[in-house]
Amino acid sequence: MQNSNQRLLLKARPEGIAGPEHFEEDVQPVRMPGPGELLLESVYISIDPAMRVWVSENPGYVPPVEIGTPMRAGGIGRVLVSEDPAFQVGDFVNARLGWQTHPTVRASDSQKLDLSVGSPQDWIGPLGTTALTAYFGLFDVGAAKPGETVLVSAAAGGVGQMAAQMAKIHGCRVVGIAGGPEKCAYLKDTLGLDAVIDYKAGDLEDAYKATMPDGCDVFFDNVGGEQLDLALASLRENGRVAICGRISQTAAGELYGVKNLGLLIGKRARIQGFIVFDFNARYPEARAWIAEQLKTGSLQQRLHILDGLTKAPEGLQMLFEGGNQGKLVVQVAEE
Amino acid sequence: MQNSNQRLLLKARPEGIAGPEHFEEDVQPVRMPGPGELLLESVYISIDPAMRVWVSENPGYVPPVEIGTPMRAGGIGRVLVSEDPAFQVGDFVNARLGWQTHPTVRASDSQKLDLSVGSPQDWIGPLGTTALTAYFGLFDVGAAKPGETVLVSAAAGGVGQMAAQMAKIHGCRVVGIAGGPEKCAYLKDTLGLDAVIDYKAGDLEDAYKATMPDGCDVFFDNVGGEQLDLALASLRENGRVAICGRISQTAAGELYGVKNLGLLIGKRARIQGFIVFDFNARYPEARAWIAEQLKTGSLQQRLHILDGLTKAPEGLQMLFEGGNQGKLVVQVAEE
Repeated sequence: MQNSNQRLLLKARPEGIAGPEHFEEDVQPVRMPGPGELLLESVYISIDPAMRVWVSENPGYVPPVEIGTPMRAGGIGRVLVSEDPAFQVGDFVNARLGWQTHPTVRASDSQKLDLSVGSPQDWIGPLGTTALTAYFGLFDVGAAKPGETVLVSAAAGGVGQMAAQMAKIHGCRVVGIAGGPEKCAYLKDTLGLDAVIDYKAGDLEDAYKATMPDGCDVFFDNVGGEQLDLALASLRENGRVAICGRISQTAAGELYGVKNLGLLIGKRARIQGFIVFDFNARYPEARAWIAEQLKTGSLQQRLHILDGLTKAPEGLQMLFEGGNQGKLVVQVAEE
Repeated sequence: MQNSNQRLLLKARPEGIAGPEHFEEDVQPVRMPGPGELLLESVYISIDPAMRVWVSENPGYVPPVEIGTPMRAGGIGRVLVSEDPAFQVGDFVNARLGWQTHPTVRASDSQKLDLSVGSPQDWIGPLGTTALTAYFGLFDVGAAKPGETVLVSAAAGGVGQMAAQMAKIHGCRVVGIAGGPEKCAYLKDTLGLDAVIDYKAGDLEDAYKATMPDGCDVFFDNVGGEQLDLALASLRENGRVAICGRISQTAAGELYGVKNLGLLIGKRARIQGFIVFDFNARYPEARAWIAEQLKTGSLQQRLHILDGLTKAPEGLQMLFEGGNQGKLVVQVAEE
């Protein structure tokens, strides 16, 4: 039986990009669960752009992670000890693990995985929050319709690759933005997007015009800044922007000033921000659709897996430096 | 019988604010109407912010006004000669007059005024497009609900004063932004707004916080730029911005860069542009509601009336310099 819980605590609030220097390790005895609690072994921990917001002074929609406490994180764990009759030892659960190897969590906050739908790795990947974010952002907030042109920023990232594939499955023309030839080749050759923009190569405005001569109907935005500004210019009448993230701005020294908002008037266009948790009640609907696509092989999730809990801080840094190839996950233990 | 038609033609496309130097006068014989046409005497011509967009190279949602043609304008005219059985001599009509004293127009583009609902002056004012813009922007695009806080920019302007009053009638807490003590006093004392911000006096961000300590639910924006940027910061969860105009940006040398778009994510907030003409089919519904408010005296429209067609260009300039007190109208002939 495991006796110790390795944790990574927030040491200091980052000014710019968060990285290893903002976290410190400690080891505590595991806390045995009380009634209604579970002791888990962390298996996969998700590394998400929202984490940079959670460690800021005032995230707004959730409380900040306090200094000296484990970094907040969702993930997949295995039940080691259960004090809730609904969970058995060996069950896999989706839970608020935090950056720790052996968290003790409330059973009521944890969801038992249905392994007939997908493996634990599927559940951190295409059945996880990242994919759900893509689903609701694309179909509800962006209201993408078959035949429309959908532009996706950070299209090789966790949410982006799912949004781009979902739009393709839905019958949209899909243009993806990513940084560097490797990511762009992945989008074009592996995911089959209709066109790709490498934001690190050449003039961005020219690339928008070349790949979307008639503009775009939906922009699924994970990046913000200039990519958003140019998309406003590209938007067609009644266009929609789903703002999912703003990774270019999260750690920017100075925020980019978006100049094209006035164009929304004549275009009757809208920009809508969203948080996936608001769609909580409809996760089963989304997962049923996703599971169908997984079965037919039309949807895939490329994971970028880092090995061991202590890699989490550099994973977070990698995310903001654009170094990851697909959705970032830390594997803490074997399935 | 009138034989000559005085016109003001677009002479040059303005770079900045449009004014008298961009127009030139000419006099033509009136053109007698053919079948399905009307010869009108212009009575009231509306001066609107959208005109600055219409004279630009590429307005986007309508064709540009061509150089050497009469400036495009809507207004109220009196029928002098009718070649359409649905219109009688002496009828008042809402029509695309242009900047001319005696336009010949298509009857099918003209609406006969129901003078039992309001006078010709009411029809250029609270029953006109300006008021309809306020109605649909506030209730449909902004989706304002009783008890919510509604912020209105250019609140002493044509659309703004209507939006602000409509929000009050609807049971909202209303904060208006205007420039200078006279306009602010009008908003507070005459229209009874809950709070007023003079954007020409003191720190704007402080004023937003002082008048909306809990933020705003709806921003009805006629101005854009900094006022919009600060409103994004002020927006509450699920807040809505109806972008109606951007008068601060229309003739700006350099466009203002809006930095707070990323806040839309956590706030689940939206920005929506709109054009009143899209609500065409629902004008009767809006006018019925407005007529009801006019009868009870709870809604009023302050008009800023300039005398004579040749005043139109300086009216347009006044609009962009913020010199008007209420909705700008040029009176071309007596009712």
